[in-house]
Amino acid sequence: MTRFKLVIEYDGGKFYGWQKQDDVPSIQGALERAATALDGQEVRVQGAGRTDAGVHALGQVAHLDLQKSLPADRVRDALNHHLRPDRIAVLAASEVDDEFHARFSARARHYLYRISARRAPLTLDAGQVWRVPRALDADRMQEAAQILLGQHDFSTFRDSYCQAKSPVKTLDRCDVNRFGDEIEIVCEARSFLHSQVRSMVGSLVETGYKKWSVQDFADAFFACDRSRCGPVAPPDGLYLTQVLY
Amino acid sequence: MTRFKLVIEYDGGKFYGWQKQDDVPSIQGALERAATALDGQEVRVQGAGRTDAGVHALGQVAHLDLQKSLPADRVRDALNHHLRPDRIAVLAASEVDDEFHARFSARARHYLYRISARRAPLTLDAGQVWRVPRALDADRMQEAAQILLGQHDFSTFRDSYCQAKSPVKTLDRCDVNRFGDEIEIVCEARSFLHSQVRSMVGSLVETGYKKWSVQDFADAFFACDRSRCGPVAPPDGLYLTQVLY
Repeated sequence: MTRFKLVIEYDGGKFYGWQKQDDVPSIQGALERAATALDGQEVRVQGAGRTDAGVHALGQVAHLDLQKSLPADRVRDALNHHLRPDRIAVLAASEVDDEFHARFSARARHYLYRISARRAPLTLDAGQVWRVPRALDADRMQEAAQILLGQHDFSTFRDSYCQAKSPVKTLDRCDVNRFGDEIEIVCEARSFLHSQVRSMVGSLVETGYKKWSVQDFADAFFACDRSRCGPVAPPDGLYLTQVLY
Repeated sequence: MTRFKLVIEYDGGKFYGWQKQDDVPSIQGALERAATALDGQEVRVQGAGRTDAGVHALGQVAHLDLQKSLPADRVRDALNHHLRPDRIAVLAASEVDDEFHARFSARARHYLYRISARRAPLTLDAGQVWRVPRALDADRMQEAAQILLGQHDFSTFRDSYCQAKSPVKTLDRCDVNRFGDEIEIVCEARSFLHSQVRSMVGSLVETGYKKWSVQDFADAFFACDRSRCGPVAPPDGLYLTQVLY
């Protein structure tokens, strides 16, 4: 058996998330079907992060073990062939040793959240950006975002379905940048709680709307109380951009 | 009657181009239907550029005359309401005087062409980028592109359907830039011939592949002969980004 690391891009819009489930399309399910078709035996695919329904990836990472001995580029091309017409693409495949584990070996995960602050409906970016119909104060959002850096109890920004043992995480980066009508939020950490980025973004937007002051945002965060979270941002704008090892 | 200028964004993928035609969806047709529903009388919409089937716009401009006296922002919102669920959005509406003509008053048109040079199929950008499966030499493409600047006979890059009286146009800008796997080509001129940008891009790509030398590109261009044009680039990657007045 040879272990391969895959870097994967997908449009999460038509899938019920990364994780394989009965009867509904999932990214993991589609990849396992493609890998099984390629290898002629049942193949399991292990991902670095279980993205939710509708969440996209520009650089998800997964690993799998193949019986066939194939050059890595052939694995990439053959998986892409079997994945058609799903909007999932293997950008790169590389041979790795058996110690490599997409989830447990990961040192950091990077997410991007895209917001479009405009009145007009989305056209080209429909399903790939969160449109908010009012102006946002990006500087204020950036100020609030800096409060999240470092090691904290993120209970306020943790979905009730979260299975992590502890709500304590270390956030290494949370930057809010404006490009015209679009606001991009970049978050980096070793790992995240379930819905953590969407929960943080939803509350940052309350601050950007000036519905909340920066102090309100800080109070909600330090309360470590899920009921203090703002409305959770939709999956449309969220991208898993990179996993570092 | 009040004349309004509209700035319009659309995903051209589902339309048979800008121009109204019988029995097939067009951008102009959808806008005229929306404007007629808003105004309660037959409204004609005149665009700055007749984009082809599948070509997108980030900043198409059009004008129309309404009997109703409405604030410009109401016109924008009402048109967007009537345009649903088409992937066409009015980004801005403004009142202009009766001299303003979207097509004849235009001083310059800007286009963007997006290419993705990668083996993997497209996912999030499907239909919005031209994917070429081989590496492109962007520096070489940029060198060739500079040959096009200024006033020339663009017959090589002119579709046989083109209705313009003369093949002579003045190209003010043609820049090729690389961003990772993506290559973006920006073209600016007062006006363009039919399929001119896609014809130029197709031939630039032959040069980027090193199938053509820069001299081959120049020779094809200066031959002023349509049969010397490279394969015309598909509409997917083309965007009308801005019209200046």
